[in-house]
Amino acid sequence: MRVLGVDPGLTRCGLGVVDGAPGRPPGLVAAGVVRTPAGDDIAARLLALEVGIDSWLAEHHPDAVAVERVFSQHNVRTVMGTAQAGAVAVLCAARRGLPVALHTPSEVKAAVTGSGRADKAQVTAMVMRLLRLAGPPRPADTADALALAICHLWRGGTQSRLAAAARAASSTNPAASQAAWLTNSGGPR
Amino acid sequence: MRVLGVDPGLTRCGLGVVDGAPGRPPGLVAAGVVRTPAGDDIAARLLALEVGIDSWLAEHHPDAVAVERVFSQHNVRTVMGTAQAGAVAVLCAARRGLPVALHTPSEVKAAVTGSGRADKAQVTAMVMRLLRLAGPPRPADTADALALAICHLWRGGTQSRLAAAARAASSTNPAASQAAWLTNSGGPR
Repeated sequence: MRVLGVDPGLTRCGLGVVDGAPGRPPGLVAAGVVRTPAGDDIAARLLALEVGIDSWLAEHHPDAVAVERVFSQHNVRTVMGTAQAGAVAVLCAARRGLPVALHTPSEVKAAVTGSGRADKAQVTAMVMRLLRLAGPPRPADTADALALAICHLWRGGTQSRLAAAARAASSTNPAASQAAWLTNSGGPR
Repeated sequence: MRVLGVDPGLTRCGLGVVDGAPGRPPGLVAAGVVRTPAGDDIAARLLALEVGIDSWLAEHHPDAVAVERVFSQHNVRTVMGTAQAGAVAVLCAARRGLPVALHTPSEVKAAVTGSGRADKAQVTAMVMRLLRLAGPPRPADTADALALAICHLWRGGTQSRLAAAARAASSTNPAASQAAWLTNSGGPR
């Protein structure tokens, strides 16, 4: 399964593509940033973002798109831009019929570091370790997008295993099914 | 000149098309609402909104699109949805090469009622009067979209006249040009 993670923003929108499958370490496919000039009007910026994201979808053919869920931040102007950029990403994916998932920053941090309160350095370090990179992902500021994609692979995988376990439980021994799920529910090993 | 006004929202997105020219009263072309079910996921909602707005652009061929500029509101969840819906409207217009303008709620209220703090009833009453309607615009909740379009016609018109006056002033008698502009700078009569 291939996931495109999108860390939305008007000035810089981080994109990260990761391949993965249950029980195997995730692999880096591509990372990049779409930038739009702060001096341009909002119409030109959203259009440039759409063109950029759409070309990534066309080039990398992800099976799903994970976008950071935007919450209130201190700077209202920033959060508006983030919400608008996120909307463009969601729209580009939906137009191609791709499943879209939203994950909160804490869900992403918890998925890759074990703590929902991890700082940026910790997230970057774990993204390097999980994707077996020699240094921080390039270009800069793509660690969050890659972490989103990894988070989605694992959450999606866990949900699939939960669903499989539920199906198994309804037909065979419930305790055995749950035990089978538990042994597979960890993150990377 | 024909303007599509968009009062953005995920649950209900108001659309109003108004024709106008300097010195003539604006005329209603069409008003409508694109609704998306609150139970649908965000991808389906933004996609439905895009389809809805795009079909209005295809049907009514506006020369410009005016979208309400979103500001912080009490309900953060609402403001996010509004920002995302607004982004879709801006994107649809930009993709067709149409000029997009953002006007704040107070600018719109001031344009149609003379007061930036006018309430909903006052805005609706003025939209009825300005467009010479026998009752409140139908469907309900389209008054703001129509007011946006009227606001844009007038602000755009004033800006055009200012530009024309500036051009005239630089080539002929400055005082005469300014006087000519002043006699045309009012709202409806």
